[in-house]
Amino acid sequence: MPPDLEAGIAALGLVDHHVHGALRHVVRRPAFEELLTESDRPIPPWTTAFDSQLGFAIRRHCAPLLGLEPSAGADAYWAARAALPPEEAARIFLRAAGTDCWLVETGHHGDRLFGPAAMAALSGGHAAEVVRLEAVLEAVAGAGASAAGLREDFRAALRERARDAVGLKSVVAYRHGFDFDPAPPGAAEVREAAGAWLRTLDRGGAPRVADPVLLRMLLWEGVATGLPLQLHAGYGDPDIELHRCDPLLLTRWLRAVEPTGTDVLLLHCYPFHRNAGYLAQVFPHVHLDVGLAVNHTGARSAAVVAESLELAPFGKILYSSDAFGPPELHYLGALLWRRGMTRVLGAWVADGEWTEADALRVATMIGRSNAARVYHLDE
Amino acid sequence: MPPDLEAGIAALGLVDHHVHGALRHVVRRPAFEELLTESDRPIPPWTTAFDSQLGFAIRRHCAPLLGLEPSAGADAYWAARAALPPEEAARIFLRAAGTDCWLVETGHHGDRLFGPAAMAALSGGHAAEVVRLEAVLEAVAGAGASAAGLREDFRAALRERARDAVGLKSVVAYRHGFDFDPAPPGAAEVREAAGAWLRTLDRGGAPRVADPVLLRMLLWEGVATGLPLQLHAGYGDPDIELHRCDPLLLTRWLRAVEPTGTDVLLLHCYPFHRNAGYLAQVFPHVHLDVGLAVNHTGARSAAVVAESLELAPFGKILYSSDAFGPPELHYLGALLWRRGMTRVLGAWVADGEWTEADALRVATMIGRSNAARVYHLDE
Amino acid sequence: MPPDLEAGIAALGLVDHHVHGALRHVVRRPAFEELLTESDRPIPPWTTAFDSQLGFAIRRHCAPLLGLEPSAGADAYWAARAALPPEEAARIFLRAAGTDCWLVETGHHGDRLFGPAAMAALSGGHAAEVVRLEAVLEAVAGAGASAAGLREDFRAALRERARDAVGLKSVVAYRHGFDFDPAPPGAAEVREAAGAWLRTLDRGGAPRVADPVLLRMLLWEGVATGLPLQLHAGYGDPDIELHRCDPLLLTRWLRAVEPTGTDVLLLHCYPFHRNAGYLAQVFPHVHLDVGLAVNHTGARSAAVVAESLELAPFGKILYSSDAFGPPELHYLGALLWRRGMTRVLGAWVADGEWTEADALRVATMIGRSNAARVYHLDE
Repeated sequence: MPPDLEAGIAALGLVDHHVHGALRHVVRRPAFEELLTESDRPIPPWTTAFDSQLGFAIRRHCAPLLGLEPSAGADAYWAARAALPPEEAARIFLRAAGTDCWLVETGHHGDRLFGPAAMAALSGGHAAEVVRLEAVLEAVAGAGASAAGLREDFRAALRERARDAVGLKSVVAYRHGFDFDPAPPGAAEVREAAGAWLRTLDRGGAPRVADPVLLRMLLWEGVATGLPLQLHAGYGDPDIELHRCDPLLLTRWLRAVEPTGTDVLLLHCYPFHRNAGYLAQVFPHVHLDVGLAVNHTGARSAAVVAESLELAPFGKILYSSDAFGPPELHYLGALLWRRGMTRVLGAWVADGEWTEADALRVATMIGRSNAARVYHLDE
Repeated sequence: MPPDLEAGIAALGLVDHHVHGALRHVVRRPAFEELLTESDRPIPPWTTAFDSQLGFAIRRHCAPLLGLEPSAGADAYWAARAALPPEEAARIFLRAAGTDCWLVETGHHGDRLFGPAAMAALSGGHAAEVVRLEAVLEAVAGAGASAAGLREDFRAALRERARDAVGLKSVVAYRHGFDFDPAPPGAAEVREAAGAWLRTLDRGGAPRVADPVLLRMLLWEGVATGLPLQLHAGYGDPDIELHRCDPLLLTRWLRAVEPTGTDVLLLHCYPFHRNAGYLAQVFPHVHLDVGLAVNHTGARSAAVVAESLELAPFGKILYSSDAFGPPELHYLGALLWRRGMTRVLGAWVADGEWTEADALRVATMIGRSNAARVYHLDE
Repeated sequence: MPPDLEAGIAALGLVDHHVHGALRHVVRRPAFEELLTESDRPIPPWTTAFDSQLGFAIRRHCAPLLGLEPSAGADAYWAARAALPPEEAARIFLRAAGTDCWLVETGHHGDRLFGPAAMAALSGGHAAEVVRLEAVLEAVAGAGASAAGLREDFRAALRERARDAVGLKSVVAYRHGFDFDPAPPGAAEVREAAGAWLRTLDRGGAPRVADPVLLRMLLWEGVATGLPLQLHAGYGDPDIELHRCDPLLLTRWLRAVEPTGTDVLLLHCYPFHRNAGYLAQVFPHVHLDVGLAVNHTGARSAAVVAESLELAPFGKILYSSDAFGPPELHYLGALLWRRGMTRVLGAWVADGEWTEADALRVATMIGRSNAARVYHLDE
């Protein structure tokens, strides 16, 4: 590996532009293992979540931070890990990540996780908030909005919630898929859909928005704020129908959003990251990352990083871990990204395709400066 | 390559969990070449099927077993090959495969191929049967079932046919695609579809089931047996419409099957093997292999093997050759899988990402022990 | 790298079977940069099109031909480049490409580009024309065809235009997508669609054909000529909806065309090149290339080349640059293809998977002789 490149990437203070909090409570081993897979089913008794690329990567790379040998056994790892209070575990791994700034999406199980301020304090870095649109709408509905007032109440609540946020996030991929009508919904349509949804709440339903009209409404309201809008794309838990989460299905909606000037960030994207790269090349407002997949592909993550470096202009690719829960994931996302970038760019430098200076410049763009520009982090 | 890993993978007695019989009759060169491609069209006169990754791999790896140089020319290869009686060719290649146990799917041109018992005898290993659901239904229809009795007759015939089988197989991908209604069909629906189909047989039609209602019926009847159910997915002959064979299209059906506890095995999957890996991660009953593609991608097969080792937990990946006909394919599937695994896992060991012990453990899981668990082979 | 293979591939006189002309006029830097991306939007002010794989590859590989260091800075590159008259730039890069024969598609902005004769003269090689079907139909419509006579007029114009052409091309992917009715349209259907389209022209609309009936008509008329038919597939400008340009969506149409004996060439195909490889394996008349993507993926292009060498028989893969405009692209396409092939095939030779003679033979097939056969270039 070219030595300056390796050192430069190792020293980069990253912006993790899409991440969740680290676990704030003690968990037992089954719960810990369930956080190592996107499955929401119990781990089958004949196996362990450690027998996966992510599990192997944790044993390999996280064990040494707990005083164990690299690739310590799963039981030994868990024994050492379980001995640490949550704050202590978070402090160890978050600090080791070398992440300067965490953009924390707070809309999913926020009560189980450290919030942005705690993430900053525990890591010794900075943090800012990304607000999940669905969570805001569900809170508004839960607080007793009327069908006629839902949109206006949502808009007001979003204005309030997003006052200090640097970005917004939507999980429309989970709730419906990307095969929705790209046009903003009309007032009558929204009122009708709101009425139907709120009536299910009156009957005791959980406030979970999955109606495509309401999802379109919250997307367009989000776009109207001008804040960068993150969209989960590709791989996720078994709620999704993955073929409906191909970001190419957003093409018409992306064209419709383009005139507003709002930036759109396609998150994760695996296994559709090449498709996302195409969108990032042709649409000035579209960006992508391959977070989540980097952690979950472990020893294969350099291949995923390499594939993200094809069609997308270098100013449109961002780093994220998409870590949720175990702070190992916050650390590992950064570590595997650094290793992958060092390996991929390093090979191009070694082959004479890229200069070392260009390689470090691109790593810096992806690792931090693109995020700083999109989210206005220096302001 | 780490020496213990290479030796360990070389010594692994494989379970080939989805394979067909080797050729029992003499074939001429055109027929042999046609078995080297998934095309069912004649090989164009300006080329030869040897000018493909599979053809090159046969010349490279099979020629030495016939006393020729590696990569002997196609004509020399065929001359040596054609001199061998079918049993002798089968004996040479099946024994060299190092496969302990063949799970032989017998429902496709079974008369042209050695059956499970002969496969065991010729290879010096074990064999068990996998029953093709469509073949059972077609036999029942051909034997004169009535529309009202088709389902019951099928159920009885399947019970009988599967008495000693270790698994079932469906080619719904070929016959319709995966874009079918995920719910079990109702009795009236089945009766109507059965009537329409049987009437085509009365008029002399070949008993080939392609009606989606009947295909759903046989899938659900198969699931009800509790036997592991193999599904052809992805790449195959020109009958299929490949975009309708993306296993992601099965998502809702997989969710519907999950409560039954029946294991589902997605076969081949190329070029959708990453999609299959996602399904294997999130659904406890879903497994995958990349058989067929390993043979057909030849020198590129290590890349396909590597891509199969991303999201899927290591307990959910299986080895198969999907060989059909020339016993070269039974050998080559095993050889290329061993080479691919040795190369991919060996690189991770060399890089310090995995330990050699872990690598050999994972190779053993994929090469045999996952299949032993799923198909209860030790019982 | 095996030395004879490297030298042999370097010396191959290529047939670039799908290319456009080089720029015939002076362009300023913004226009030049816009030709380095498939986006048709202005380059955002905070970046430059040089910050992409293609931009890095131009700096790396084209700068030395202008007397600069490899990977010279973008400003230095542009300063040297802008000093050259268009003919001189074309002469330098076209000659350096080592392309013996350019099959020039003339139907897109032909007035801005050198035509086939000029391409031959500037490069010191040969050139032939590929006629774009949509351009012919639009010219016929612009010349005042009637709804009743459009098909016949088109057929006559095509006969005339294609008299000296070696092939035809369609951009139905851009104009509609591949999800069209695979059957030839009937006369009444065509007349109705023609009437509707021609009426929009009467009202001053630009003659741009996007009606699926008319597109099907021009495809089938093209097929009827017997000339090889090129189809843009996969990645392109933001006009397309990329998920509708997956060549798998052509499966039924390809089956319908097969009996005519007309060859179909799937162009570019990224990110669906593996899907195209499947089609090339199973259908005797289907071929593919990965042009365009090779240039746009720069340092990653060897990976794309490798992926194109999986399922497709070696007689069905062709070389193209799909260069349009800057003659850097004509050069770079050839250079990156040679580098990619040398690396990929060279590794197989070094590993003992392929012989060096086989590798050079396959490179020659892909680089020139497959195109010579399909387009009858030796006649």
